[in-house]
Amino acid sequence: MSPQMRMLSRVSRLLSGVAARSGAVEIVVDPLRSLGTARTMASKVLNADNLNPNVLKLEYAVRGPLVIRAAEIEKELQKGAQKPFKKVIRANIGDAHAMGQQPITFIRQVLACVTLPEIIDKGGYPEDVKQRAREILNACGGKSVGSYTMSHGIELIRRHVAEYIERRDGHPANWQDICLSAGASNAIKNVLQLFCNTIDGKPSGVMIPIPQYPLYSASLAEYGLCQCGYYLNEETNWGLDISELERAREECLKRCAVRALVVINPGNPTGQVLTRENIESIIKFAHKHKLFIFADEVYQDNVYAEGSKFFSFKKVLREMGGPYDKEVELASFMSVSKGYVGECGLRGGWMELVNMEPVVQANLYKAISAMLCPTTLGQTTVDCVAKPPQQGEPSYDLWLKEKTAVLDSLNKRAKMIADTFNKMEGFSCQVVQGAMYAFPQFQLPARAVEAAKKAGKAPDVYYAFKLLEETGICVVPGSGFGQRPGTYHFRTTILPQPALLQEMLDVFQAFHKKFTAEYSK
Amino acid sequence: MSPQMRMLSRVSRLLSGVAARSGAVEIVVDPLRSLGTARTMASKVLNADNLNPNVLKLEYAVRGPLVIRAAEIEKELQKGAQKPFKKVIRANIGDAHAMGQQPITFIRQVLACVTLPEIIDKGGYPEDVKQRAREILNACGGKSVGSYTMSHGIELIRRHVAEYIERRDGHPANWQDICLSAGASNAIKNVLQLFCNTIDGKPSGVMIPIPQYPLYSASLAEYGLCQCGYYLNEETNWGLDISELERAREECLKRCAVRALVVINPGNPTGQVLTRENIESIIKFAHKHKLFIFADEVYQDNVYAEGSKFFSFKKVLREMGGPYDKEVELASFMSVSKGYVGECGLRGGWMELVNMEPVVQANLYKAISAMLCPTTLGQTTVDCVAKPPQQGEPSYDLWLKEKTAVLDSLNKRAKMIADTFNKMEGFSCQVVQGAMYAFPQFQLPARAVEAAKKAGKAPDVYYAFKLLEETGICVVPGSGFGQRPGTYHFRTTILPQPALLQEMLDVFQAFHKKFTAEYSK
Repeated sequence: MSPQMRMLSRVSRLLSGVAARSGAVEIVVDPLRSLGTARTMASKVLNADNLNPNVLKLEYAVRGPLVIRAAEIEKELQKGAQKPFKKVIRANIGDAHAMGQQPITFIRQVLACVTLPEIIDKGGYPEDVKQRAREILNACGGKSVGSYTMSHGIELIRRHVAEYIERRDGHPANWQDICLSAGASNAIKNVLQLFCNTIDGKPSGVMIPIPQYPLYSASLAEYGLCQCGYYLNEETNWGLDISELERAREECLKRCAVRALVVINPGNPTGQVLTRENIESIIKFAHKHKLFIFADEVYQDNVYAEGSKFFSFKKVLREMGGPYDKEVELASFMSVSKGYVGECGLRGGWMELVNMEPVVQANLYKAISAMLCPTTLGQTTVDCVAKPPQQGEPSYDLWLKEKTAVLDSLNKRAKMIADTFNKMEGFSCQVVQGAMYAFPQFQLPARAVEAAKKAGKAPDVYYAFKLLEETGICVVPGSGFGQRPGTYHFRTTILPQPALLQEMLDVFQAFHKKFTAEYSK
Repeated sequence: MSPQMRMLSRVSRLLSGVAARSGAVEIVVDPLRSLGTARTMASKVLNADNLNPNVLKLEYAVRGPLVIRAAEIEKELQKGAQKPFKKVIRANIGDAHAMGQQPITFIRQVLACVTLPEIIDKGGYPEDVKQRAREILNACGGKSVGSYTMSHGIELIRRHVAEYIERRDGHPANWQDICLSAGASNAIKNVLQLFCNTIDGKPSGVMIPIPQYPLYSASLAEYGLCQCGYYLNEETNWGLDISELERAREECLKRCAVRALVVINPGNPTGQVLTRENIESIIKFAHKHKLFIFADEVYQDNVYAEGSKFFSFKKVLREMGGPYDKEVELASFMSVSKGYVGECGLRGGWMELVNMEPVVQANLYKAISAMLCPTTLGQTTVDCVAKPPQQGEPSYDLWLKEKTAVLDSLNKRAKMIADTFNKMEGFSCQVVQGAMYAFPQFQLPARAVEAAKKAGKAPDVYYAFKLLEETGICVVPGSGFGQRPGTYHFRTTILPQPALLQEMLDVFQAFHKKFTAEYSK
């Protein structure tokens, strides 16, 4: 495909997205015509020709054209359209509450109390809820969650996060190195941005796993950073091989200055949980090549497989001793959107900065100050996650029951989904050791691959669109995360509630049989 | 100052900030030593030498070194330190609740109900609160505010914002052109980012007022965009002269491709409210030179002076007719942090995109999708601002009473502050027609200017530090916003409650007399 054709096809996809969002009306959807206008008359001040090209390049498959089409189908169903299915199953995004997971009562009670303080004393809430709400309000300017906070967050909550990390790792954490954020994505982008410059004329390169969570590929594109992909090894349950890290780095050095390494543990979309030994080797690799580590640890509470255990990079670093302990620079990211909490919409998260140069840290804190502060209610949620009710406190029993129920159920669904795909002909699925996704590989008949090419789509995208149109199941094609050439995958969440998940898997199986038969004639 | 010395001084300021935040402990604060280490050994992967230089350059005075020192003084006072004052008065930032403004009951009741839906039916809330909470929950995935929303926000709320704009302007607004955001700053940065490229080898330039709100200078620095300052005319109450726009643009064309124009109306820090005629001339200027308009209209509800009235750029554009109506591209920004609401900590805002090329708009919506969504509770607050209780509804009377009380009080304080400064020798202060700030000019004795130079500080910064140390009053020096060379200003909010504001102004007056006497000996 020529660069111009690639651009046309990209704009075409985008515009069909706008059309989907616009429902019935007004936005011109003939991409060639629209683009033609832009290119020849350039009537607008800001147009496809003079727009920041990094923004054009950026792709985020988790909310891409397929998901936009899913929303369109939902609207069609609402209007009474006849389809072979009654509802769209959104297995594309780790959005627990949207799939029926219930909020943790303690968190919601504290949130209600801090937003409307008059109910603290008259709502009949447990003492620990009332006390927590008062503590948080006392830490807010004017005792209102309507006040700005420090840009790195409320000191009290940063201290609670440091205590959480100390309990988790058995090693001290410094509260000044904790920076609260509106979800992990914001924090990750803030740290990535520190690398936006050239070194000896070469752009900075960041190593990311393939498959990866597309926030990384999107942000690297947005910032003009160089993407250095290293493949995870599907055969060893998406293991991380140091030899592959070495190969990928060598290959990237030709075009960029490799400065940072992203590790997602537990893995998204791949669900693996790294062993302690593996983490040690990764730290040694980073030390040897002077790489800053991004430890994306947002799924640290989501570990299911027997024998799997979460080790934070910070803990392993501390226990490896010198020279790693003091020299390897690390940012670890956490979110309240995942775990047993799933409060995606409240936008709370944090990062811990380890061994960062003080000048750099001061500059990072300065840079985020222009964005004022992360939402106080997201911060309040962070507080409840970092300092949950303790044994003996009135909210403890209910909290534990709710937490255990969520994690047990996720555990069962993780097994159910991998088992089912492994029983289906043409599928293989690695054990979902952790996180919230399965990333099965599947075979496609040669004629399906051909048909996809004719339709101008990657084969897995073609398959996922067919699946959506015929069954209402929305998954994300593997090409949105990256995969070895010639292999086909998709990511599905394990979040549909058990009965719905079973239904989804049955429908999926029937679809795949029919699809394979159709393209094998 | 040599570039190296400038860097040392910058790092020194930053590090003293880190020291302030760290309270007692652990971060090395000798900047020379620390920097020396970084520069000679470069022991860290990420250090002052290889950090993104735009991040080093970025400054945000509203939360700069002076404010960091203010926080430090607060801690000293808490620990019992003896000072000539008992508390710090934070007049540096438009943080209404922190200064004692009370939240609007309707908003907080709706927020409590959506976070803890079980109280909707048993809390004794007014019917319109209950209905609003149910409507918002029905628009959330799984009926939970814990779910992600569309990246541009919940459709229901975008529709309510469009209706608000229609009522405000008397012209249709298209809900698909409304994009919700976590405060206005986020939205502003997202649109600025579209311009991050070169045109014929020249960087994109953005025209901003001087004085300006430093989010703009900070973001331009961060994105490597070219800052084209145009001076507001203090003599005509910070008026915006088209001849000055022409001069500034001509001057900037030498070094960049001028592509956009930022107008802040009502003005921050300057408090002027543009006339309709002035806005028409600005739109003509933008059309003539093909500039995209950023209309920062977050203070649209904060207009005090008799004869002043807020006109949105959108309204004026629509009423000017062709060719402006269809051709001038515009993004207008709004926030729930200001107005009569002051919910800064909840992070809610929106932008309306007018005449934007569909391909560009699709790319903007795509770019924000990787950041998932603005907080649902910020969006809920937006909903309450866009669609407040209507006459006849049970919450209407209380809502109107609370709204009127806040705006009346701000109105009085706006007058009080300008009148007081105008009575003080060596001060002149323009009428605060709108927004939340006064930006008085003041005279400094020649010896004070000299002393400032010796201390390595700008004269207004030197003055503001003395003011803080001796009185506890925290204002932001004019150099953080920009001012004509040789003039000195500061920005103070009008937000301290009336009694405190009077106290602050009395103390200020005494300080200034003493300061002037001391440096006139």
